Amino acid sequence: MPRIAVLGASGYAGAVAAMLVHRHPFFELAHVTARSEAGARLDDVHPRTRVPMQLEAWDPDAQSDVDAALVCWPHGVAAPAVAALRERGVRVVDLSADFRLRDRGIYADWYGEHGAPELFGQAVYGLPELHRERIGGADLVANPGCYPTAALLALAPLARAGLIGDVVVDAKSGVSGAGREPTASTHFIAADENMTPYKVDRHRHTPEIEQELAGQGAGVTITFTPHLVPLAQGELVSCYVTPAREHSDGEVRALYDDAYAREPWVELRPGAPGVLDVRDTNYCRLSVHCDGRTGRILVFAAIDNLWKGAASQAVQNLDAMFGRDEREGLA
Amino acid sequence: MPRIAVLGASGYAGAVAAMLVHRHPFFELAHVTARSEAGARLDDVHPRTRVPMQLEAWDPDAQSDVDAALVCWPHGVAAPAVAALRERGVRVVDLSADFRLRDRGIYADWYGEHGAPELFGQAVYGLPELHRERIGGADLVANPGCYPTAALLALAPLARAGLIGDVVVDAKSGVSGAGREPTASTHFIAADENMTPYKVDRHRHTPEIEQELAGQGAGVTITFTPHLVPLAQGELVSCYVTPAREHSDGEVRALYDDAYAREPWVELRPGAPGVLDVRDTNYCRLSVHCDGRTGRILVFAAIDNLWKGAASQAVQNLDAMFGRDEREGLA
Amino acid sequence: MPRIAVLGASGYAGAVAAMLVHRHPFFELAHVTARSEAGARLDDVHPRTRVPMQLEAWDPDAQSDVDAALVCWPHGVAAPAVAALRERGVRVVDLSADFRLRDRGIYADWYGEHGAPELFGQAVYGLPELHRERIGGADLVANPGCYPTAALLALAPLARAGLIGDVVVDAKSGVSGAGREPTASTHFIAADENMTPYKVDRHRHTPEIEQELAGQGAGVTITFTPHLVPLAQGELVSCYVTPAREHSDGEVRALYDDAYAREPWVELRPGAPGVLDVRDTNYCRLSVHCDGRTGRILVFAAIDNLWKGAASQAVQNLDAMFGRDEREGLA
Amino acid sequence: MPRIAVLGASGYAGAVAAMLVHRHPFFELAHVTARSEAGARLDDVHPRTRVPMQLEAWDPDAQSDVDAALVCWPHGVAAPAVAALRERGVRVVDLSADFRLRDRGIYADWYGEHGAPELFGQAVYGLPELHRERIGGADLVANPGCYPTAALLALAPLARAGLIGDVVVDAKSGVSGAGREPTASTHFIAADENMTPYKVDRHRHTPEIEQELAGQGAGVTITFTPHLVPLAQGELVSCYVTPAREHSDGEVRALYDDAYAREPWVELRPGAPGVLDVRDTNYCRLSVHCDGRTGRILVFAAIDNLWKGAASQAVQNLDAMFGRDEREGLA
Repeated sequence: MPRIAVLGASGYAGAVAAMLVHRHPFFELAHVTARSEAGARLDDVHPRTRVPMQLEAWDPDAQSDVDAALVCWPHGVAAPAVAALRERGVRVVDLSADFRLRDRGIYADWYGEHGAPELFGQAVYGLPELHRERIGGADLVANPGCYPTAALLALAPLARAGLIGDVVVDAKSGVSGAGREPTASTHFIAADENMTPYKVDRHRHTPEIEQELAGQGAGVTITFTPHLVPLAQGELVSCYVTPAREHSDGEVRALYDDAYAREPWVELRPGAPGVLDVRDTNYCRLSVHCDGRTGRILVFAAIDNLWKGAASQAVQNLDAMFGRDEREGLA
Repeated sequence: MPRIAVLGASGYAGAVAAMLVHRHPFFELAHVTARSEAGARLDDVHPRTRVPMQLEAWDPDAQSDVDAALVCWPHGVAAPAVAALRERGVRVVDLSADFRLRDRGIYADWYGEHGAPELFGQAVYGLPELHRERIGGADLVANPGCYPTAALLALAPLARAGLIGDVVVDAKSGVSGAGREPTASTHFIAADENMTPYKVDRHRHTPEIEQELAGQGAGVTITFTPHLVPLAQGELVSCYVTPAREHSDGEVRALYDDAYAREPWVELRPGAPGVLDVRDTNYCRLSVHCDGRTGRILVFAAIDNLWKGAASQAVQNLDAMFGRDEREGLA
Repeated sequence: MPRIAVLGASGYAGAVAAMLVHRHPFFELAHVTARSEAGARLDDVHPRTRVPMQLEAWDPDAQSDVDAALVCWPHGVAAPAVAALRERGVRVVDLSADFRLRDRGIYADWYGEHGAPELFGQAVYGLPELHRERIGGADLVANPGCYPTAALLALAPLARAGLIGDVVVDAKSGVSGAGREPTASTHFIAADENMTPYKVDRHRHTPEIEQELAGQGAGVTITFTPHLVPLAQGELVSCYVTPAREHSDGEVRALYDDAYAREPWVELRPGAPGVLDVRDTNYCRLSVHCDGRTGRILVFAAIDNLWKGAASQAVQNLDAMFGRDEREGLA
Repeated sequence: MPRIAVLGASGYAGAVAAMLVHRHPFFELAHVTARSEAGARLDDVHPRTRVPMQLEAWDPDAQSDVDAALVCWPHGVAAPAVAALRERGVRVVDLSADFRLRDRGIYADWYGEHGAPELFGQAVYGLPELHRERIGGADLVANPGCYPTAALLALAPLARAGLIGDVVVDAKSGVSGAGREPTASTHFIAADENMTPYKVDRHRHTPEIEQELAGQGAGVTITFTPHLVPLAQGELVSCYVTPAREHSDGEVRALYDDAYAREPWVELRPGAPGVLDVRDTNYCRLSVHCDGRTGRILVFAAIDNLWKGAASQAVQNLDAMFGRDEREGLA
């Protein structure tokens, strides 16, 4: 059984990742790490995981006796930890933004200095529905951001068909996306019964979506605006596409059927998706609408931001890296 | 003191309207009506109103001893009641959709047959920030829909300046917008921790927004999609405008300052608005952003769908109709 | 593989029960029934189940080709269906209240006429932690009510030790406990940001708790008051016990350790439990506090009302009836 | 117009207090203070107040040009500020716990050292429904805690009639009661869809309730347990009274009618109260039930913890101190 470490298991995504690896029939959860909560048991910090393991302080030498690691740290600090693991031969799925971009200039613009420049650009972008084959052989996988996961699954079929002339992505996320740090905006009283746009015209997932859309054939500058809504887990992206060319409803329908009919974790439905339908699952639920009145194509995608948008997708990548069925440990 | 009747006071908007008239220093609440709850006291049905009056069954002869009426009934059934009131000389603010549109064909397409065709097109569209002067002399005012209120306040300055080439309006509303009838989608278990688009590409507020934008100089076909979010009262519209022409940030800023600096119920703020900021108030809170990267203009507007989106705007119209300060009874 | 039918699979508890049986490694889900939604697929009605089976109208002849059935119908109508299944040799776990009580007079007082008097009193009360051995051989198991499940797990150790002189049970439940029927009190606007006692001094779970406490040795008349709180799933009972006799903290601690240390589904913790800790699980989480100042013993128990309070406990009973490990299909 | 300062106006209760004084027809809001947010405008920190005043750092010399002050600081630090204000002749309503208790030993046990021992025991306990006459002439009023407000209004009529033999108070509060500091337990993800008891058998409102019950004639040791529930504002206390003597339903009903029929801010209703009925108001809503089966008397009381449980009750006290109608500024 391959042994797995989860770094940053006291965060929301890290805790779900640890729980999923712990329950996984093929992998063994060998280490869970935390910074300030090292020494505590994970099931005391996050009862719902029911993982009765002690959180350890991060120590690359002590914790590199594993076959792979899921790194659930913030961007910036993740890169050096990833480098330390790679030096010791550990395969890595990194959930931070540090290895998602492939243009150093864009990384510098949106994130600043990189923590492991020698590894920059070496990762495979871990969206299995787009890059399955390359993930299989990868030693370093950059797990996508939550918004890019939903937006790219929503838009990739149109991108590949040359149908995206322009696109507005209006995204809505539950509060867990803001992380476990108690702040003014994650206080119950600030979030409850409220909703608001945030990081208007400068959210860091923007260049990530553009890079991957370009990789699918759509070199567009997107408008992307996230909003905070009063729920715990769940993310909805509403994509408004101005088509680049003539098309029929049937063509669009066929594009999505071809792309997703055999994907275990994408559900294509006629009606608009709700985030509750995918709560605590690895599913992305999609609907596509050709609006005859305006000519626009509307695509809605719902995921659980902590699962398909982070932790369960990391395990799906792990499955792919180790040649397992991508449903294993997630069904 | 002008005497006022509120028809449909057992619904959410009607209850707020009755409460506001009851507290109003200039108006006297003379009648409150309800259908199935006639006979009950309004403060038993809606304790928060603290209006200790008995709900009456609707009877145009008995209840026309008033100077004005707020009709809080659904479209279709509202029109005949409005006609009965007008015949008896009662001034009316109608909160339904029956008198908002001015094109009979468009009404027929989106709503079907009209319940008082002789009055069709006779109303002033009751958005005081756009039509204050005509409201003053009006006997029949069509209170705007909740989404149109927010979207028009957000877009009117750009429309008048010829700046709207194209626009996507992504709207989010709390559950009270769906009305008081218990249904599968208003059940707590369906709405809680969920969010979903609804009435994709066919919501009836679309032609209303288009009509009024055209009236402001922007004859565009809009993309409008509402979403249901898990909160009680509050509505946010996120408007993504592709400009029709060159412009500067300064010009845009000046357009909004000129439009709203002296409006008592519009708050222009640099940061993005949250719906909690306007809960239980008549305010519309706005922010405008020129995105240099994409060239788009983004406008966000937050209102309380039951207040500025319905009941308090109706009272603001009443104030305007009777020559009162529009802050009266609402501050 | 034993074949299982779930009657009433379109309700909240029924849907969870069907999902759990469908995923179960030892049982096969053979039929799912519904009344008004017969013909629809369960995963369309309840997407989170991911059970791709068609809901059938109830037909005892067609659906008795099973080894056991979970009956998820309301009291009153459940009894005749249970009788029909028993006549055809099908083992039954009934989730209604119809077979929980053993005193016909008490049933008549609180519920009215019984729908299958010949079977009255024939069931084993399906709380495995109290009646495991008798459940093993039972053909008819009465699954406990949600409040009794939590209250009895909280109080049984004290009852058996003769420690309960008097007890107040203040219970709080999420909205799913009120069922799937859209009503005035389950409307989002009524429940959100609200909490209220309901069925004060006349909730039907009262005699059930008293009967089972008596069976454990405590023949007390209890005060039991449920409250509705704004969350979807979760139930907390706060038990305030006036002890019948002298005792030490150590004795009380030992009673709970002895009762639950080897129980797979009861978690005894020093700190007060939260319902989120047990969401979507079969766990009951307990804490016990001896208050030196007042002399009272306080016991808090948290369960998920749809899981341990209904559906997953039914599957736990099924496991026990078929001689399986009670963790099977639930971990 | 008497001039009023609000100290600690950036906290939740302080912001509501400032808003109410600002709107008050008889008082003038002269100063609002804050610690870390000094310099900001109150309506930027708390938009819903719409108070366009700058928050000042606390300076007793600069801010004592007022007739009265509402001190909205935590216990411990409040006392010295109150002393500084009293030295300068300013009348004070203190919202902290510092002046509520009258027994120095009990204060020391539950709170530790007192910050202004020379003033200890000098305040009138500011529950107008119990101590109206003494509040009128007071220079220092100790505004009650939120739980004591609801519990005492619920129990005082029974206490005065010698009916309380024993009482269990199970209390539930929304999250704003925990204050504005972002902490692990006020994080949206911790509170949402959760509920839990807290401070079991050691909440500091216990001795305050006991002191005041004793003052009404009931020298009992109470069991008091608060619970956190997922809503913003609202508090419900469920009181389970074991009567000390024989009584009739009619006697109990008369006790409450006599106590509250003429009180403007207590609503006595037959059905159980919900906290939403009193949201954003100074009302306490009560219901009383004599349970024939158990002999217990059940009393339920709902308040808004930030209003009647803190800020609006402080303004009610201010009205009483200045001889105004207690409805003034609150209706």
